[in-house]
Amino acid sequence: MLDLSSDVRDLTAAIVDIESVSGDERTLADAVEAALRGCSHLTVERDGDSVVARTDLGRSRRVVIAGHLDTVPVAGNLPSRIEQGRLYGCGTSDMKSGVAVQLKLAATVTEPVHDVTYVFYDCEEIDAERNGLRRLAAHNPQWLTGDFAVLMEPTGGQIEGGCQGTMRVEVTVRGERAHSARSWMGRNAIHDAGRVLDVLRSYEPRRPVVEGLEYHEGLNAVFVRGGVAGNVIPDECVVTVNYRFAPDRSVAAAEAHLREVFAGFEVQVTDAAAPARPGLDHPAAEAFVRAVGEGHARAKLGWTDVARMSELGVPAVNYGPGDPTLAHTKDEYVTLTEIVRAEQRMTVWLTGNG
Amino acid sequence: MLDLSSDVRDLTAAIVDIESVSGDERTLADAVEAALRGCSHLTVERDGDSVVARTDLGRSRRVVIAGHLDTVPVAGNLPSRIEQGRLYGCGTSDMKSGVAVQLKLAATVTEPVHDVTYVFYDCEEIDAERNGLRRLAAHNPQWLTGDFAVLMEPTGGQIEGGCQGTMRVEVTVRGERAHSARSWMGRNAIHDAGRVLDVLRSYEPRRPVVEGLEYHEGLNAVFVRGGVAGNVIPDECVVTVNYRFAPDRSVAAAEAHLREVFAGFEVQVTDAAAPARPGLDHPAAEAFVRAVGEGHARAKLGWTDVARMSELGVPAVNYGPGDPTLAHTKDEYVTLTEIVRAEQRMTVWLTGNG
Repeated sequence: MLDLSSDVRDLTAAIVDIESVSGDERTLADAVEAALRGCSHLTVERDGDSVVARTDLGRSRRVVIAGHLDTVPVAGNLPSRIEQGRLYGCGTSDMKSGVAVQLKLAATVTEPVHDVTYVFYDCEEIDAERNGLRRLAAHNPQWLTGDFAVLMEPTGGQIEGGCQGTMRVEVTVRGERAHSARSWMGRNAIHDAGRVLDVLRSYEPRRPVVEGLEYHEGLNAVFVRGGVAGNVIPDECVVTVNYRFAPDRSVAAAEAHLREVFAGFEVQVTDAAAPARPGLDHPAAEAFVRAVGEGHARAKLGWTDVARMSELGVPAVNYGPGDPTLAHTKDEYVTLTEIVRAEQRMTVWLTGNG
Repeated sequence: MLDLSSDVRDLTAAIVDIESVSGDERTLADAVEAALRGCSHLTVERDGDSVVARTDLGRSRRVVIAGHLDTVPVAGNLPSRIEQGRLYGCGTSDMKSGVAVQLKLAATVTEPVHDVTYVFYDCEEIDAERNGLRRLAAHNPQWLTGDFAVLMEPTGGQIEGGCQGTMRVEVTVRGERAHSARSWMGRNAIHDAGRVLDVLRSYEPRRPVVEGLEYHEGLNAVFVRGGVAGNVIPDECVVTVNYRFAPDRSVAAAEAHLREVFAGFEVQVTDAAAPARPGLDHPAAEAFVRAVGEGHARAKLGWTDVARMSELGVPAVNYGPGDPTLAHTKDEYVTLTEIVRAEQRMTVWLTGNG
């Protein structure tokens, strides 16, 4: 049982100590649901191992505060332990400290200035197919409506706005096989793939400013494969290219751009995820940046679930305690003061006492 | 039982009809040994499934005439059949028609102008480790001594002199991993491998003339691999390069050349096989080219077992009936007139009646 009246640091440790590797979140989801059902000002819903709780105070705006319950596999780093002001253990940074802050806000801010929807979801750390937020958006999109959303992923206490999109394409170069002792009888597809690498090597990525935040694109080969046998001129070489693009460009525009960049080659899109605009021009977001970020925000470069919120029409940012570079490491930890600060700042925002 | 008094065309068919896929040559080797032991002018030796027969007439020169007994796996193309002057079946071209010519010469040319060593060996079509000629050279090098050698592999009736060497190297380019959303934090090894491809694309292969024959080198990527994950800047890319080099260059010289060409990259030699000089300036070879090739010979570009003879100090050529491009195909055949012509020309050479 989780005690929502306990200190946010103790609550974090209690949550960390309930193992919840992706696909195995039931125990934690049950504990979260039970704790929230103890709060009379909240309406609580459940879908699989996702839990959604909300106030219904008739405020003119609604904000969504979301986080995932699951962690990557435990790496001998449970139960949690405290050392020199840090809480160590699987999920401390990514993102059970954020979940603890969510739960504290849900329990203590009974009269928020905006109506609030708290979302706790499963399976964020694995295949997108199984992502709990995706499932909620499909089954119960009305539970996720709002004017602005905060995903409490670790950002080192910075506000990170929007996110870049990602697209992977396979650029295929074809040649003609021949025995390598008579190479001039064929056409070497690996050699010709040098022209694809030429494009990549000379590419100048954009750094557009979108709603005040500077993004930084990238176009990179992430895989290359080619070859038939040690004595055969290869007739195919495939370069897999990952394009990370700023939120002023749609998936369709990104594809058109890549087809232009790789004109003359076979280009096949293998996967894509839309970017999200930061939405920082929305009044609820402006107030958030003032109260929580002391007026500062930076662009989110990696793809995150804020894009799912964005697809539902809810502009979103990432903000949470914990160092993102420690996520998924055996030595993952969160600084205790960071958790307290996040709770305080979010409380200031939701109570309008900024 | 093989009847060495039969016509060379019938003898070819009889040999083809004794299955002898690599590693399973015993029945054919037994038949060859038994037939040769019936020739009183020959001394016959056996090592595994290789058979060596030789004249000992005290001639001033000795020539070696060699061929392999094995075939690639049967592809529903046995027993042999004759259609429109062609003998179809597994091994007809590569190289049982050559073996039949060897056997006819061994049986009928009882007073050759040079002493002759006839070599029939196993396991040519598989791993070099198991090659019968390699084993003979290790166990009984004295059986293979001579002034000149003919390997009766299919060459379409042309004399092909010497052979090019082959060397494979792995050229490794290293970078630094980073998340592909922040690619500038790393160094993309696949992009940097573009510089290796630049070298290959601008390389001008040599076409040196060695002992009158023009060779044609080649430097080609045969494999490329790189990549860690779809969202990671790759920290390693390996280009496997195959260098085919003319017999005026040793293996050591070839390696030195590649290290110079790929200066600044990690270069590791993964395998190499020495080239063979054509040896056409040797008197026994000159007579062979006059009698058999009507004065013509061309360079052998692929690597063949002539290089093993060359390593033993015996210059060697390839010459035999059969179209080499049909070797290893289901529809393999040999034209009957080609077999007869090869027998006639070789007889002219060995009897000195040119």
